[in-house]
Amino acid sequence: MKKKIAVLPGDGIGPEVIKSALQVLDGVATRFGHEFETAEKVFGGAAIDQKGTPLPDDTLEVCKGSDAVLLGAVGGPKWDKGNVRPEQGLLALRKALNVYANLRPVQVFPGLEHLSPLKSCRVKGADFVFVRELTGGIYFSEPKKRDRKSAVDTLSYTREEISRIVEKAYELAAGRRGKVTSVDKANVLETSKLWREIVEETAKKYPNVQTEHMLVDFAAMRMISDPGSFDVIVTENMFGDILSDEASVLTGSLGMMPSASLSERGPGLYEPIHGSAPDIAGSGKANPIGMILSVAMMLRHSFQLEKEAAAVELAVFETLQAGYRTQDIYDGTGNLVSTKEMVDQIHFRM
Amino acid sequence: MKKKIAVLPGDGIGPEVIKSALQVLDGVATRFGHEFETAEKVFGGAAIDQKGTPLPDDTLEVCKGSDAVLLGAVGGPKWDKGNVRPEQGLLALRKALNVYANLRPVQVFPGLEHLSPLKSCRVKGADFVFVRELTGGIYFSEPKKRDRKSAVDTLSYTREEISRIVEKAYELAAGRRGKVTSVDKANVLETSKLWREIVEETAKKYPNVQTEHMLVDFAAMRMISDPGSFDVIVTENMFGDILSDEASVLTGSLGMMPSASLSERGPGLYEPIHGSAPDIAGSGKANPIGMILSVAMMLRHSFQLEKEAAAVELAVFETLQAGYRTQDIYDGTGNLVSTKEMVDQIHFRM
Ligand SMILES: CC(C)[C@H](C(=O)O)[C@@H](O)C(=O)O
Ligand SMILES: CC(C)[C@H](C(=O)O)[C@@H](O)C(=O)O
Repeated sequence: MKKKIAVLPGDGIGPEVIKSALQVLDGVATRFGHEFETAEKVFGGAAIDQKGTPLPDDTLEVCKGSDAVLLGAVGGPKWDKGNVRPEQGLLALRKALNVYANLRPVQVFPGLEHLSPLKSCRVKGADFVFVRELTGGIYFSEPKKRDRKSAVDTLSYTREEISRIVEKAYELAAGRRGKVTSVDKANVLETSKLWREIVEETAKKYPNVQTEHMLVDFAAMRMISDPGSFDVIVTENMFGDILSDEASVLTGSLGMMPSASLSERGPGLYEPIHGSAPDIAGSGKANPIGMILSVAMMLRHSFQLEKEAAAVELAVFETLQAGYRTQDIYDGTGNLVSTKEMVDQIHFRM
Repeated sequence: MKKKIAVLPGDGIGPEVIKSALQVLDGVATRFGHEFETAEKVFGGAAIDQKGTPLPDDTLEVCKGSDAVLLGAVGGPKWDKGNVRPEQGLLALRKALNVYANLRPVQVFPGLEHLSPLKSCRVKGADFVFVRELTGGIYFSEPKKRDRKSAVDTLSYTREEISRIVEKAYELAAGRRGKVTSVDKANVLETSKLWREIVEETAKKYPNVQTEHMLVDFAAMRMISDPGSFDVIVTENMFGDILSDEASVLTGSLGMMPSASLSERGPGLYEPIHGSAPDIAGSGKANPIGMILSVAMMLRHSFQLEKEAAAVELAVFETLQAGYRTQDIYDGTGNLVSTKEMVDQIHFRM
C-alpha cells in the first residue's frame, strides 16, 4: 500500500516525537511492505516565526492533498503575548480538514497503575474513549466578539453536526463494550436539550448499545470516582476538552496518550494529547509513546491497516513490559531511557 | 443579635439536613444569646407538586425579606421528565437574589485523607476555595433557543459582572494564603480574553496577592495532579460548575461540603453542595455536615458572627475527631451513626 502523509512537527518537543513516529513508521513500511511518502511542513509557532502565520497556505494545501496528517505539538510561552497564536493554526487546521470527530482513548496500562494519582484499585482496568465534537460549538460559532465593556461567545449546534458525532460514538461502542455515555448540561443549555434528543433517536438504531445521559458536572466527578464505569463518552467540543484532559491525568501517563481527529472523507489528523513541553524540548526526555500510538491510530482509522496498528501497539506494550521508561513514567524501578532509546526499543520489537 | 432566615428544605434529603441545621442554629442562639427567626417555605420539586412552580411568589418574597436563606437540596427523578424542573427554581432564585458570588471551600479534613479516591499524599493539606460567578454567563445570556434543526446558547459577560467577582476573589485571597488562580479559556473564548484583562487590572490593586492564569483544561488536570497548589480559584459560571464538582470528589466527602452564594447587599443563599440524594431520603443516612457548615458560612458572611461560625466549625471538627461517621464517610473504623445522632453529637459539642 502506498500512502501520502503530511508531517507537521510544530513546536517544543514536537519535532522530537515526530522523528520517533517516522522511525516507527519506517519499521511498519519495511515489515509489511508499504510505502509511506512523507512531506514535512512548517506549522504553529515555528510557522509564525518563519511566515508570520501559524497555518501557511502551502502547509494546508499539502495536508489537504495527503491521506493523513501527523502533528507533533504546537505552542509555547514565546508566542503567548503575540497577536497571532500557534493554537489558532490548530483550530484553523481542524476546521479546514473538517475533522469533526476527536477520538481520545484513555487507558491505564497494566503494570503502570501505580503512576496514577488515584489509588491503584480505582483506576485498574479503566479503558474508555472520548468522542469529542471538534469543529463546532463555542469554539467556532458566531457572534464571537469583544470590546472594552463586554464580550460574547456563541454556542450553537445544528442537528447534522450533532447527529454525525453521535453516530460515530455508537458505531465505536458497538465494536467495544457496547455502552455510550452522552455528556451534556441539559438542565441549563438549549444545545444540550437538542443533543439529548438526537442521542435518544440514534440510540434506537443501536438496540445492543446501552445509553446513559450524564450531566457534565456529575461526569467530572465520576471520571475520578469511578473511571472504570465508562466505555464510550460522547460530548460537545468544550466539555470534551475539559473532561478528556481531566481523564488523561488518571492514567498518570499523559505522555503516552494518542488522539485521532477524523473527517467524513478527507485526511485524518493524528497527534499526541500532550503539549509542546518547552521546558524539556531538546533534552531527550520527551516520551514518544503518545505520538507513536497516534501513528497506530492513523494506520487503523485512515488506512484500515488493522494488523499494522496492532503490531505498533504490541511493540509499545512489550517495551513497557520489558521495563523501559522515559522520565515522565519513571518511578525508580526499571530502565530509565531517553526518547531515542525508547524509540529504538519499540522499533526493535516490531 | 436578631436575624430573619428563610428556610427552604426542598426535596429528597433536603428536609432532613435542614432539620439538622436548625438544631445547630438553635445551639448557637442559646450559647451566644442571639435570636434567629425562621420562616420555612416550599421550594423546588415540592413546590412544583404543591403549586405548579419550583419558586412560588411568596417563597421568593420571604427570601427577599430575610437576612439570609438556608436551602437543603432540590431535584429528583420524579420531576426529570416534566415541563418545569426543580433546578429552574434554583436558577431563578439565584438570579432574583442577585447572588453573583458562589463560594465553595474544598478542604480535606485532617484524619479523613484516606477517604479520597486520590492517594493520601496527594490530597493531604489541600485547602482552597472556589469563587464561581453565579448569575451570568451561558446560564442566563440571550439568545437561548432551540427548534428541531438547531439550538443556540450565548455566553456573554459585561465588565461589571467580571469585575465584581474578581474583586471578591482578591479580597478573599488577601485574607488567606494570598494566591488567586484565574481559570479561563483565553486561547479560544472572547469572554475569557476580557476576563483575563480584568484580572490583570484587579491584580494591580493587590500587590500582596500572587496571580496565576490557567486554562480550564489544564486546571481540570491540576485539580487532580496537584490540588495542594491552589488557594483561591476564580472562574465563570460554567467552568466553576464543572471544576468545583470535580474538586469535591477529591476530599472523598461530598456530603461535608458547604457553599455560600453572596450578593452585593441582599440576603446570601447557603446550601450544601450535595444533591437531593433521593435514594437515601428518609433513611437517616444523610450526612448533615455540608448543611451545618453552610450555616457556619451564613453566620460568617451574612451576619459577621465570626466567633459563632468558628464555634460551629470546631464542634464539627471535634465530632469527627471523636470518630463519629455517617455511612458516606464510614470506613469500618469509628462510630457509624445516623443523621440525627451526628447532629446531636455536634450540638452537644457547641
Ligand atoms: C490548544 C487548544 C485550542 C486545544 C483545544 O482546546 O481544543 C487543546 O486544548 C486540545 O484539546 O486539543
Ligand atoms: C442544578 C444546577 C442547575 C446547578 C448548576 O449547574 O449551577 C448545580 O449543578 C450547582 O452547581 O449548583
